Amino acid sequence: MTAPGWRRDLFALPDLVYLDGNSLGALPRTVADRVAAVVEDEWGRGLIGSWNHVPGSSSGWIDLVDRCARLLAPLLGVDAADVHVGESTSQSLFATTVAGARMRPDRRVLVVDRSTFPTDAYVVSSVARLLDLEVRWCEGPGDDGGVAALEAVLDDDVALVSLTHVDFRTGAMFDLPAVAAAIHQHGALAQWDLCHSTGAMPVDLAAAGADLAVGCTYKYLNAGPGSPAYAWVAPHLQADLDPPVAGWMGHASPFAMRLDHEPRTGVGRLRVGTPPVLALSALEAALGVFSGVTTAELRAASLQLTGRFLAHVDTLAARFPDEQVALVTPRAHHRRGSQVSFRHPHAYGLVQALIARGVVGDFRDPDIARFGFAPLYTTLDDVDRAAAALAEVLESRAYADPAYAERNAVT
Amino acid sequence: MTAPGWRRDLFALPDLVYLDGNSLGALPRTVADRVAAVVEDEWGRGLIGSWNHVPGSSSGWIDLVDRCARLLAPLLGVDAADVHVGESTSQSLFATTVAGARMRPDRRVLVVDRSTFPTDAYVVSSVARLLDLEVRWCEGPGDDGGVAALEAVLDDDVALVSLTHVDFRTGAMFDLPAVAAAIHQHGALAQWDLCHSTGAMPVDLAAAGADLAVGCTYKYLNAGPGSPAYAWVAPHLQADLDPPVAGWMGHASPFAMRLDHEPRTGVGRLRVGTPPVLALSALEAALGVFSGVTTAELRAASLQLTGRFLAHVDTLAARFPDEQVALVTPRAHHRRGSQVSFRHPHAYGLVQALIARGVVGDFRDPDIARFGFAPLYTTLDDVDRAAAALAEVLESRAYADPAYAERNAVT
Repeated sequence: MTAPGWRRDLFALPDLVYLDGNSLGALPRTVADRVAAVVEDEWGRGLIGSWNHVPGSSSGWIDLVDRCARLLAPLLGVDAADVHVGESTSQSLFATTVAGARMRPDRRVLVVDRSTFPTDAYVVSSVARLLDLEVRWCEGPGDDGGVAALEAVLDDDVALVSLTHVDFRTGAMFDLPAVAAAIHQHGALAQWDLCHSTGAMPVDLAAAGADLAVGCTYKYLNAGPGSPAYAWVAPHLQADLDPPVAGWMGHASPFAMRLDHEPRTGVGRLRVGTPPVLALSALEAALGVFSGVTTAELRAASLQLTGRFLAHVDTLAARFPDEQVALVTPRAHHRRGSQVSFRHPHAYGLVQALIARGVVGDFRDPDIARFGFAPLYTTLDDVDRAAAALAEVLESRAYADPAYAERNAVT
Repeated sequence: MTAPGWRRDLFALPDLVYLDGNSLGALPRTVADRVAAVVEDEWGRGLIGSWNHVPGSSSGWIDLVDRCARLLAPLLGVDAADVHVGESTSQSLFATTVAGARMRPDRRVLVVDRSTFPTDAYVVSSVARLLDLEVRWCEGPGDDGGVAALEAVLDDDVALVSLTHVDFRTGAMFDLPAVAAAIHQHGALAQWDLCHSTGAMPVDLAAAGADLAVGCTYKYLNAGPGSPAYAWVAPHLQADLDPPVAGWMGHASPFAMRLDHEPRTGVGRLRVGTPPVLALSALEAALGVFSGVTTAELRAASLQLTGRFLAHVDTLAARFPDEQVALVTPRAHHRRGSQVSFRHPHAYGLVQALIARGVVGDFRDPDIARFGFAPLYTTLDDVDRAAAALAEVLESRAYADPAYAERNAVT
């Protein structure tokens, strides 16, 4: 079995126990050189010609979207031809949600889970308002994978169900194939937000019978702060794919500059504006660290890491009963993503005190301390060091330091 | 008077006559170092903490949008508080067009000019479809600044008029204040696409009475391929600003992670997803080259450049009457932007033959050769060298080289 963190040498990590790769992945070493080459050679020297051919290559910036899609596809378990890359997660989700609703024009309801990352709820609500539909809420994955939660809200008026695969607070995970099957039983479309999944586990969208999916690339995919998102549309739906914003890059012949819009075939019609070349180049370089890695290896390493940390948390909760440490991540392997979270009455101060001790996790309102485990660069030693620091913080009650009374803007 | 190209030393330009800064601006020298620092120090070492504070600074990535807005505002003639930065031009235009239409709920028509860059037409049509409105076309700016073209289509059913300030093919320019006044006479909103304006001339949105505006930053603002766009909303409209996509970054308290969306005040509600940090950092560095430069200086230098090239084109058209060189850019200074274009039956080959001679312009379907003049780095000597190369290409008919029969994907 592959040891967790087996590709750590490919990352430029400072001397930290970094357990926040579920918020911002670490820097793959190749990215810095690649971005410098894009700026200095491709833009500075190649100038406008680099859209067709970057200096010394037969390929150009115009091919970046496709090249990134080819690298992402194996991590999603899909064909590259069905992946679009280049907008923000929120914008991608807006596009696929509108397109999905348009595929079920006689249905009036969009379902979204209460455990979703908030932007998904806002986007689904935005779409409902634009298309005069209704939002219906369902509960999160809980301990059973979420089928019961879905069954409670599904009926034949549901056009699309948009779910966040892994709960960003608790790490609980929807049973993707089972939930997709339940959704299809009612003739609705299953849309997945994979922000907290891809790069840490298999998602196997095609085999699982998903319909639509989006995800960011700055968490377990390590492409840098605010890097572009991807969107996937099942092949059998692409003939009817009708997104809300037609842009020039989604035109079948963008450089003909015609006033009437003739959409590209397939997911290409999700293209909107000029692609973000610096960010896509960083993404392409970042995805190189997954070369030769299977999603099964990622999952096996992830479960070793989360399982070991979870056991530490259980031990510490028993050792410090007054601290009210309450695990919120499912103990069952197949019900969690790649993070471990617990509640604590002073969670914000606890996370800050850990950061002061070189262990970086993060805080989620109101009382959750959250720790993400990136299988390529997090080691079992990191887990043990984090647990030792956590023990020290609980024992010393360092979380109550008045220095932590005022919160950062970004938590 | 400032000599055109007076800040050329701030740019890393290869040995070329580069007249395509209206498509992709040249690289400001500071950008490479800044981007390297963002990747290696801020992301690589600062990791997630850089959202609040980058290493060695009291400011963090979360402030980048505001910092870029402060640098852009003087070039737009507006207050920084009224500028949003971070989406693509097409996505920004979609947001402001929907928001504008929602400010005139009893009106059923969106007007767009036929001379617009195509994505604007596609976006306005997309909005019309979503909101069940009608698209009405008007003619471009022509030789009179466009007031007559607008008067021909305006009535009290028009909610919003979306115009491209400078025609990307011909360089003809709408008379922004006069056209905005005509639009307001009919109670409609005036929206401007400034992609081919900002950075080469004053636009003075606030003084001109504009209502909404968007623009890219990769042309005369030199922020790199696919860099983020900006959007501006007149202060008096912001209380009613209601964009189509609510995202978590547009929430008044994004890190409270609530499921109900409470929009930020003002243009902040145009924020959608996580901001693109690499690209915004490049933009911030790129805008530094405008420090201490007035828009009047930019315009004066631009007009010297375009006036001189235009005179060369007139001379060559007379010298080679069989070549059918037909100027399409207005000769009157106040009617043109910062480019000069002419028709030629072999325009594609002509542009390629010029590139082979070290003079980079571009081609626009079907028969336009286009030359942009970036006032900060283009010199009068560049103009003369370009004209000499053009004379040689026309005399030798090098444009007919069979090597130019097959076109690049990006033209």
